[in-house]
Amino acid sequence: MKTLFHYNWQVREDWYKWCEDVPQDELLKARIGGVGGILHTLFHIIDVEWSWIRGMQEKPDFQESFDGYRSLEKVRKLDAEFKPEVGNFLLAWNDGMEDRILQDMRPDGTKVIFTHGEIMRHVIAHEIHHIGQLSVWAREIGKKPVSANLINRGLSMKIK
Amino acid sequence: MKTLFHYNWQVREDWYKWCEDVPQDELLKARIGGVGGILHTLFHIIDVEWSWIRGMQEKPDFQESFDGYRSLEKVRKLDAEFKPEVGNFLLAWNDGMEDRILQDMRPDGTKVIFTHGEIMRHVIAHEIHHIGQLSVWAREIGKKPVSANLINRGLSMKIK
Repeated sequence: MKTLFHYNWQVREDWYKWCEDVPQDELLKARIGGVGGILHTLFHIIDVEWSWIRGMQEKPDFQESFDGYRSLEKVRKLDAEFKPEVGNFLLAWNDGMEDRILQDMRPDGTKVIFTHGEIMRHVIAHEIHHIGQLSVWAREIGKKPVSANLINRGLSMKIK
Repeated sequence: MKTLFHYNWQVREDWYKWCEDVPQDELLKARIGGVGGILHTLFHIIDVEWSWIRGMQEKPDFQESFDGYRSLEKVRKLDAEFKPEVGNFLLAWNDGMEDRILQDMRPDGTKVIFTHGEIMRHVIAHEIHHIGQLSVWAREIGKKPVSANLINRGLSMKIK
């Protein structure tokens, strides 16, 4: 679990660096698919990760829209604000937490029960999926995307 | 680990069904990003998953190119051929296998050592990333993509 979160955070950091060389209008440009833009995707990833981590702790959710975060600097700042709490949750994570329950309500009033283990994997997959969308948009603007490889990132590799 | 593989296989199956309603020329059309096309992506996902699973078992790799698999039927057939071996490997997977070693050689001759745990997560992330690319191309041809949600797939959810 921890390796996949660390992978996502490394890749996300690589995308922030990638964004530094891209004009802001390209980062904000409306695009087809996903949430419709590069920076908006990064904001959405942070938002969703934090919201689920907050939910599992029974703390209030993040409710703001992308409108207030339309620059790389603001998105990075938000990430830096949220990361310590997410990091602490992950640090404390152990197999015994897998079956803890989060109750949620669907718009139609149906009660839904998720396990924390399921939510953690959902958060992981959510980020990787959206990063895949960024990789297409990167090519559309003629730039090589960040590598999505999990190997060769030093997450548990040794070179001899 | 198993949940994320099962998630990927469910999503992949959903994409096969999604492809049934899409003309073959759209499935084969050259697109920007990734490996450059919808069906080619599904072939690539199967290829990479199987190749790593074979590698961890020290068995020969899959060496064929997409040229021989340019229809939904052929890709599905290949998947069905490979799935039992991948499934058996996953079924036998346990935490004690995390640190097993796969040795590989880089093109420059450097020896690289990967742990099996790292490779398993790489395979998981690889598929999710490429499926993210499919979701953009789906919108480009005006179709709603398959849901990437890991929750609400019955992977460990209970509804009351």
